[in-house]
Amino acid sequence: MDRRELMKLGTGTVFSGVVASGSAAVPAGVGSRQVEQWTVFEVEAPGPASGNPFVDVTFGARFTQGHRTVDVTGFYDGSGVYRVRFSPDTAGRWSYETTSNARELTGLSGTFECLPAQTGNLGPVGTAHSFHFQYADGTPYFPFGTTCYSYGFVGAPLDQETLENLKAAGFNKVRMCLLPKPLGKLQPVAMPFEQLASASPARAEEASTGGAGKEHFDLARFNPAYFQLVERRIQDLLAANIEADVILFHPYDAWGFKSMGQEADDRYLRYAVARLSAYRNVWWSIANEYDLIKSKSMKDWDRYFRIVAENDPCSRLRSIHHSRVMYDYTKPWCTHASLQAYDFDKSAARRAAWNKPIIYDEIQYEGNISRRWGNLSPQEMTYRFWRAIVNGVYATHGESYMSTDGNPVWSDAGRLHGASPARIAFLHKLLERTGTTGLMAAENPYYLNAGNPGQLYLWYFDYHCAGEYEFPLPETARFKATMIDPWAMTASPVAGTFGGKSKITLSGKPYQAVLFEKV
Amino acid sequence: MDRRELMKLGTGTVFSGVVASGSAAVPAGVGSRQVEQWTVFEVEAPGPASGNPFVDVTFGARFTQGHRTVDVTGFYDGSGVYRVRFSPDTAGRWSYETTSNARELTGLSGTFECLPAQTGNLGPVGTAHSFHFQYADGTPYFPFGTTCYSYGFVGAPLDQETLENLKAAGFNKVRMCLLPKPLGKLQPVAMPFEQLASASPARAEEASTGGAGKEHFDLARFNPAYFQLVERRIQDLLAANIEADVILFHPYDAWGFKSMGQEADDRYLRYAVARLSAYRNVWWSIANEYDLIKSKSMKDWDRYFRIVAENDPCSRLRSIHHSRVMYDYTKPWCTHASLQAYDFDKSAARRAAWNKPIIYDEIQYEGNISRRWGNLSPQEMTYRFWRAIVNGVYATHGESYMSTDGNPVWSDAGRLHGASPARIAFLHKLLERTGTTGLMAAENPYYLNAGNPGQLYLWYFDYHCAGEYEFPLPETARFKATMIDPWAMTASPVAGTFGGKSKITLSGKPYQAVLFEKV
Repeated sequence: MDRRELMKLGTGTVFSGVVASGSAAVPAGVGSRQVEQWTVFEVEAPGPASGNPFVDVTFGARFTQGHRTVDVTGFYDGSGVYRVRFSPDTAGRWSYETTSNARELTGLSGTFECLPAQTGNLGPVGTAHSFHFQYADGTPYFPFGTTCYSYGFVGAPLDQETLENLKAAGFNKVRMCLLPKPLGKLQPVAMPFEQLASASPARAEEASTGGAGKEHFDLARFNPAYFQLVERRIQDLLAANIEADVILFHPYDAWGFKSMGQEADDRYLRYAVARLSAYRNVWWSIANEYDLIKSKSMKDWDRYFRIVAENDPCSRLRSIHHSRVMYDYTKPWCTHASLQAYDFDKSAARRAAWNKPIIYDEIQYEGNISRRWGNLSPQEMTYRFWRAIVNGVYATHGESYMSTDGNPVWSDAGRLHGASPARIAFLHKLLERTGTTGLMAAENPYYLNAGNPGQLYLWYFDYHCAGEYEFPLPETARFKATMIDPWAMTASPVAGTFGGKSKITLSGKPYQAVLFEKV
Repeated sequence: MDRRELMKLGTGTVFSGVVASGSAAVPAGVGSRQVEQWTVFEVEAPGPASGNPFVDVTFGARFTQGHRTVDVTGFYDGSGVYRVRFSPDTAGRWSYETTSNARELTGLSGTFECLPAQTGNLGPVGTAHSFHFQYADGTPYFPFGTTCYSYGFVGAPLDQETLENLKAAGFNKVRMCLLPKPLGKLQPVAMPFEQLASASPARAEEASTGGAGKEHFDLARFNPAYFQLVERRIQDLLAANIEADVILFHPYDAWGFKSMGQEADDRYLRYAVARLSAYRNVWWSIANEYDLIKSKSMKDWDRYFRIVAENDPCSRLRSIHHSRVMYDYTKPWCTHASLQAYDFDKSAARRAAWNKPIIYDEIQYEGNISRRWGNLSPQEMTYRFWRAIVNGVYATHGESYMSTDGNPVWSDAGRLHGASPARIAFLHKLLERTGTTGLMAAENPYYLNAGNPGQLYLWYFDYHCAGEYEFPLPETARFKATMIDPWAMTASPVAGTFGGKSKITLSGKPYQAVLFEKV
């Protein structure tokens, strides 16, 4: 756990049973109560442990700064402990007071000082400039993410191996499931709901072969240990500056969690949001391949969005990912589109329809498995990222090389084998180096290109092996040119500067790019 | 001129001024009058040379075999010479008698013996099995063509160089324009219409910069020398077993021939059909990129089809090629579709709509020019051919490498530089070797494949790098398998035989194929 991120107010001390505990980044004793902007301020309090605290006890807090109040829902973390988490977005003095239907959890109050964000803390990511993203401090954020569905619950040592690989590869977002997913011969570290004593151990194999296994669980009782483990993985990502694109529902289910019924679904969502929304790297993906979950209707999906939006005081990014039936991303609760597609040429039409950023979150996987979605060459994966960027959209990586050791392959968790991540990182660094806030695709381009008019142009020739091209640069400025080989990861400056119609000799090789930057 | 192909009945001899002259393949003196099935039997007769014979004089002949009569329109070939050409499709005795509005061309009659086709003469190509082609003798014909728009009028030595390259590359169809096209610094060998003495020489540059140049020509008077030259190129193709996909109109015009008006258009079509339809390798392409000729309407295009159909006693194949607006290939006069496209995944829908063979006649060009249609890598061109074949359709090659000598590049005429033709020929030979009459695409395949159910399956993995795959072969037979590398042009037998679900280890390389043939 990254202690900078969690300022914990421990139980059993003075101040109405609620105090500030220490924080590595912001050393604070009882009474000092300081927390860094966009980190987590947590109130921990003892409360009822009998009955079913998950449904019987309400708990929350109102956070106040001047005339502004923010109501935050808390949650039961087991063993008689209740928590409410808040991520202050403005520096200065805040106060809080708890509310509950339990007397001992009611009216606990205090104050704390929110200190400005320290170096490296850019705040949460939000949308910006219609089709792009940025951190709350204004720094552009370009999603260059990957997919590790099972990272949150795969357990040691694979979770740490996953994290190390993520960091080394330079990905800055990971799509991860909150509910467990079968892991072949491995088991998830725990189950998210209390297992019924009467039921046999809910092994994935048994539950899946035996049909829906939800009768093995008390869906009204969460297993806090499970969520604590996943939470630590999210904190690890936060410490590594990696966004956690948390998938709330998915169809890859061996235990019946995809079909729990409305009451249990909604309770689960509220619990997840109460636990996780204060982490500034959390994004909400209502589902992966939502349309493969036949037991849920579009009405359900819309309701989930509303529940998440209503219960998340931080308004984290929200989207949903599809298999064949695209969700209507014009709906107001979607902050961006999250597509399973690689027809980037439709991006302009989609932008016009949705007016939101678009992430092609599943563009197939680099790998060699026999499923047709899982055997892109690293070159093809690289070129799809480039096609995305010059179409003014973003893409997400995934990998599925056949496992030789029986462990999950990358897009569940584990170790990267592919050659595309280095190229994806190269493109990512290139974008960052340009200083752009996000590239806008040219309208009906002759060759694919995107940029910022008058400032910056990135041409990508895709499969075209042009031996020369007359670039239609603006007359009004001079530009330096850089030849880019996306696979070789080379960037070679071209001598001279250019403006207006500029014929430049090209290599005649396919999949090359040329960057123009205003001098 | 290939003398086997043209049995000429000379003027100025006995038999009503019409006699049989010799033929290299079928030696025949006056009186023997023998001609090989599907070759050209020509009646040549002297007639009026004054006035305008092209419009004043009608000339034709009725060919009779038993109760069957075939009326054929002749044409004026200049210098007082009239010709009518007939390609007998059945062996046996035929008779003919000419008709004309000129007394000396009326009632010329004779007989000849049509001998069965000799080895190597498979007859004309027609459609077969709904979506495919075959020669009249039943031999399957798989169109593996290319594009040399200017081959017919580029002149020596480029025309012969083109022909030698065509033969060496193994292409069996060539798309060629009948009307001239600007050739950069070269000039077409002649003009198809008589140039007016009052006009300056119709140089392409002048005419094109000066706008429509048709005022330089008498559009009512053809230039027989021009058509004789193009005709020889078609005869050369015939001798090389290459189909001539003759493009009747095109928009690449420097002389106004794309906008001659209805009367001149229709006269030109009748003249072209009268001259050329007897050559069994002729196909009619009403236009290249018809929709780029703004002076013509859809009504015109439909009328052209009807004129060609009505005047062609041989019913040669007919289609039309588009730029952006696809023609309605359901129209009854289209024998097949001729597309400018490479979205082969739409082929099933198109077959369902049109119920005809589909040739993707322009799938961009291998090359390195700066235009985006002209710089495919040879690999990409190769893979497009494979995608076509496993989608149950056909494709046509083109090449446009930058010219260093100022001569036209391949898709006008000249010399091939590319590396895809060898791969295209490899695929062509592979298809022929299987003995198929045409591959049918699998419906909604998991991986692209086409074949003949129970007999033959050709899988193509495209960009998928599968390390293994369980092929869903029929249980009812055993198949031998061959691994095919379309680029390396290798075909490697796999040990054993297969049937039913058959898991086979694959290379994990992209763009590989596997052929299964019934043992």
